[in-house]
Amino acid sequence: MAPPFLALAAFLLQLCFIATSLNHPLDPLTPQEFKQIKHIIHNSNLGFSSNNLSFHYVDFDEPEKTDVLQWLSSRNESSPLPRRAKVLAQTHDLSTHEIIVDLNSGSITSDQVHTGHGYPTFTTEEFYQTIQLPFRNSQFKLSIHRRGLNLSEVSCLPLTVGWFGELTTKRALKIVCYYRRGTDNIFARPIEGITMLVDVNLMQITDYLDRFEAPLPKAEGTNFQSSNPKPPHKFKYFQPGQQPKGQGFCIDGYSVKWANWAFHVGFNSRAGLVISTASIYDPQKRRYRNVLYKGHVSETFVPYMDPTMEWYFRTYMDLGEYGFGQTANTLEPLIDCPGNAMYLDVYMVRADGEPYKVPKVICIFERYTGEVSVRHTENYIPGKFKREARQEVNLVVRIVSTVGNYDYIQDWEFKQTGSIKVGVGLSGILEMKATSYTNNDQITEDVYGTLVAENTVAVNHDHFITYYLDMDVDGKENSFVKTKMQKMRVTDVSTPRKSYWTAVQEYVNTEADARIQLGLEPAELLIVNPNKKTKVGNNVGYRLITGSSAASLLSGDDYPQIRAAYTKYEVCVTAYNRSERWAGGFYTDQSRGDDGLAVWSAR
Amino acid sequence: MAPPFLALAAFLLQLCFIATSLNHPLDPLTPQEFKQIKHIIHNSNLGFSSNNLSFHYVDFDEPEKTDVLQWLSSRNESSPLPRRAKVLAQTHDLSTHEIIVDLNSGSITSDQVHTGHGYPTFTTEEFYQTIQLPFRNSQFKLSIHRRGLNLSEVSCLPLTVGWFGELTTKRALKIVCYYRRGTDNIFARPIEGITMLVDVNLMQITDYLDRFEAPLPKAEGTNFQSSNPKPPHKFKYFQPGQQPKGQGFCIDGYSVKWANWAFHVGFNSRAGLVISTASIYDPQKRRYRNVLYKGHVSETFVPYMDPTMEWYFRTYMDLGEYGFGQTANTLEPLIDCPGNAMYLDVYMVRADGEPYKVPKVICIFERYTGEVSVRHTENYIPGKFKREARQEVNLVVRIVSTVGNYDYIQDWEFKQTGSIKVGVGLSGILEMKATSYTNNDQITEDVYGTLVAENTVAVNHDHFITYYLDMDVDGKENSFVKTKMQKMRVTDVSTPRKSYWTAVQEYVNTEADARIQLGLEPAELLIVNPNKKTKVGNNVGYRLITGSSAASLLSGDDYPQIRAAYTKYEVCVTAYNRSERWAGGFYTDQSRGDDGLAVWSAR
Repeated sequence: MAPPFLALAAFLLQLCFIATSLNHPLDPLTPQEFKQIKHIIHNSNLGFSSNNLSFHYVDFDEPEKTDVLQWLSSRNESSPLPRRAKVLAQTHDLSTHEIIVDLNSGSITSDQVHTGHGYPTFTTEEFYQTIQLPFRNSQFKLSIHRRGLNLSEVSCLPLTVGWFGELTTKRALKIVCYYRRGTDNIFARPIEGITMLVDVNLMQITDYLDRFEAPLPKAEGTNFQSSNPKPPHKFKYFQPGQQPKGQGFCIDGYSVKWANWAFHVGFNSRAGLVISTASIYDPQKRRYRNVLYKGHVSETFVPYMDPTMEWYFRTYMDLGEYGFGQTANTLEPLIDCPGNAMYLDVYMVRADGEPYKVPKVICIFERYTGEVSVRHTENYIPGKFKREARQEVNLVVRIVSTVGNYDYIQDWEFKQTGSIKVGVGLSGILEMKATSYTNNDQITEDVYGTLVAENTVAVNHDHFITYYLDMDVDGKENSFVKTKMQKMRVTDVSTPRKSYWTAVQEYVNTEADARIQLGLEPAELLIVNPNKKTKVGNNVGYRLITGSSAASLLSGDDYPQIRAAYTKYEVCVTAYNRSERWAGGFYTDQSRGDDGLAVWSAR
Repeated sequence: MAPPFLALAAFLLQLCFIATSLNHPLDPLTPQEFKQIKHIIHNSNLGFSSNNLSFHYVDFDEPEKTDVLQWLSSRNESSPLPRRAKVLAQTHDLSTHEIIVDLNSGSITSDQVHTGHGYPTFTTEEFYQTIQLPFRNSQFKLSIHRRGLNLSEVSCLPLTVGWFGELTTKRALKIVCYYRRGTDNIFARPIEGITMLVDVNLMQITDYLDRFEAPLPKAEGTNFQSSNPKPPHKFKYFQPGQQPKGQGFCIDGYSVKWANWAFHVGFNSRAGLVISTASIYDPQKRRYRNVLYKGHVSETFVPYMDPTMEWYFRTYMDLGEYGFGQTANTLEPLIDCPGNAMYLDVYMVRADGEPYKVPKVICIFERYTGEVSVRHTENYIPGKFKREARQEVNLVVRIVSTVGNYDYIQDWEFKQTGSIKVGVGLSGILEMKATSYTNNDQITEDVYGTLVAENTVAVNHDHFITYYLDMDVDGKENSFVKTKMQKMRVTDVSTPRKSYWTAVQEYVNTEADARIQLGLEPAELLIVNPNKKTKVGNNVGYRLITGSSAASLLSGDDYPQIRAAYTKYEVCVTAYNRSERWAGGFYTDQSRGDDGLAVWSAR
């Protein structure tokens, strides 16, 4: 029997009656835990010492899903789930160790040297040190001098190098540079023709290439920042809406409750935002029903379409190579998020393992879109006017990651109807190439992009943003169903109608069959729980509604496509495997396609 | 030279300095004009008299586009453009007259009898009279009595009949009925098995069919209206945002200015909302540049997928048969539109030609979506932190049309970036069928839909909403261009890259080639002005960005598909022809596919 208090109180009034002493078993690592991890590793008897160790990745190593779900249903405070961490650290001998640290026992439970292909994400320190190198390089100084430019007005960027069939590789970055004079938009004035290769372990430029000079694009009109925007952009500081009954959501630690939703907001340096254990309250059954165990961006493949020497390698995998968490920004109230937003700070570690805080990286707010959620006017009841209409108010969880020129504005939007909408807004500045052309009329060759200003080509490219969604609709056992719209011919001649379509459900049994190229046939994609039925016997499930989508056009034998082979399909469904989270492979930098979604799906 | 006042004043300050005495040449007909039209027709010497004439359609007959554009550029108050009206009226001999009335001279300039297929939109009076007929019909009373139902709790709906190959037709409607007891949701309790055919000219039931009885679905839990919504739907009256600088838009008559946009909001009983002469201000050129001459919903095809006797004919063309204007609702402030909305009233005519007002049918409001419009954080300028981010504030123009069970929430959204987004939200209630089944397990045949409750099947159907968009990008001469993403193989071996894609522009020269099935190949659709180039020689143009879209699955030889043949393609582009506005043909009721977009496009 339900406690009388619950029976009397409105559901929303009890929203914030969460016991705040209870941590959620998926809460991200705390600063204290990060410090403890560093201490445990440095003081282990495995030979790690503070001056020969570089921390590339420290993430919470989650408990088993079964344990988390069981804990959540019992919420037994006296038996918290284990706290473990997964650490990728490079030692002085350049090997990468995968270390599992048990925070409860204060010990290392596993230490394995990575022997496969690819390297961990670079540290922020490595990126920073890399882009200082040109300023001490005499060849670069000469190149800049020869172009008549001032070295103090040059900015350089660290670019990942991809993999192009090399049998042996080293950790490497390439450097390209830009001229800042007269603009705050460094991407607007590329110093074309110069590429430097950096051996990141040696932290030295090992290959210097100055192939040609191209005219430097003009600075005029390229500023991206405007402290006093002119019309039409005058609507700064539109204040959020008023909520007479107050804010509708409650954040307790990293657990959020809003309307009929309860979910957990996590964070790590690789994925950035992680949504977990999202469940929806069923007022009839008086309990929460699971929807999504975990969701986050899995990989982001950004191949540029210029095969020439300075550009061919720009085939970024932004998540695995730069990190959506590592590049996440402090959000600006009233602009990045409306004034009714609440913010969460996050913690990451430096290369030395020491934690640091980035404030206000995640914002959460109720969005009144001005949309109508549900509406009907009934005109056919004699003598009565009936109308029902409800405002659409949703809850948004947002994070913004700036990877070089691009800003990825990532939203998870929860709707009262039970829908979850994920979306990414791409803003920022185009990656541009200097060229001698000043007008389209002059161009007779392929310039691999669009002339967007005099001497400036914006190079063609794609962004394939792939989400990991571990759906647990009303329980762990879920199936993937294609509902095909099948054309039918009418054979019965009792009416003059000749055709119609019917919905045919097709359960997908193999991972190979669960690789979907959208648009080939009219079909709906469903995740259903075959063990749960509605009252009238329909499957309990969620529909995956895709927007307009695209698959990669690169050749299957091209190296970037071998690495990101999963981008030939828009949807892939695989059986649950705890380790299969990163579509482009876990060791993404210079990966060779032997780990990742395409491999798992082909099994 | 520009007047000194304009040179000094900020653009937005002069927003409302429109001479309010000037009407826009596309302003809809006024009540006085409607009265004048009625008077002119009744008093003409063509033999129309008040008791033998039924007005089916009275719309403003717009001046020629060239004249409108010229007038707008000169705004010569002393030479207003002509005011004409197009009237469809049925006379006592059942012929439909297309009458052109010149309001300036007070005369009829053209009177033609329609001799082709199809009929004009029904009048509201005809729909109303039709659904009263069953209550005076003894067979119907017997059917209701036999089912143990109370006649006073029955509501009936008038359904258009489509066309199924009949060589001769009459104006007709079919009637189906529902039971209201215990619910305000009349669609929840269909009285299945009964169909009545009405000769609308005679206003008599000419065919009565009671084929079978099906269990009446339960009333419990079917109410659509809730005067006191419970959680999770508690967010009533979320107030709009505060705008410290005040409202950013100005309405003068039917002309709207907001941010960099100026456009005209029109209305007629068929299309509902009509957006005209949308142009965008270019601060460099200090003038408005045209974007869209006219846009509105052109047709809405709603075929149901049940071929049985009671359902096969439900292949509605909601715009031409019911009218998106005729069915438009008075909007409810704070729910249908946010509290910062402004409203426009509209006028239509009754069957007798007398005008009536429907208040608050169109709302206009600034929407702060909580989205970020433009954003970049720059981390690569030494010693400096640079950030630019702007709130996205858009202007929305909205109308809601309730066609029976469905509410179409139609938005035109203008963005400061220059984009226009059109969208339709479908709300309301499903069209349901009574069945003996109470659980999916019992079903072994095709029931043409989904069992959504005991004894209730929601029948499969489509909504194909087609827009008419007369694009005039930077002038009248526009071309349609497909930009195809073409896979390229790299032949040069100086880099290890093997492939890329390039954009190949293809000008479309014939209407047949301009029929697009989306998703067949990766391509962008562009409307460009071939006579206008940017500074660097790119085409001035707009891109048509489609969402996920669908084409009809009906057989080409099926009658509904013959009528709506244009739904085999998702985009069709035709050369400008003033009369080609209605994709499903102008005389839509019982049309036979000999007028409409598919015919124009095949030429």
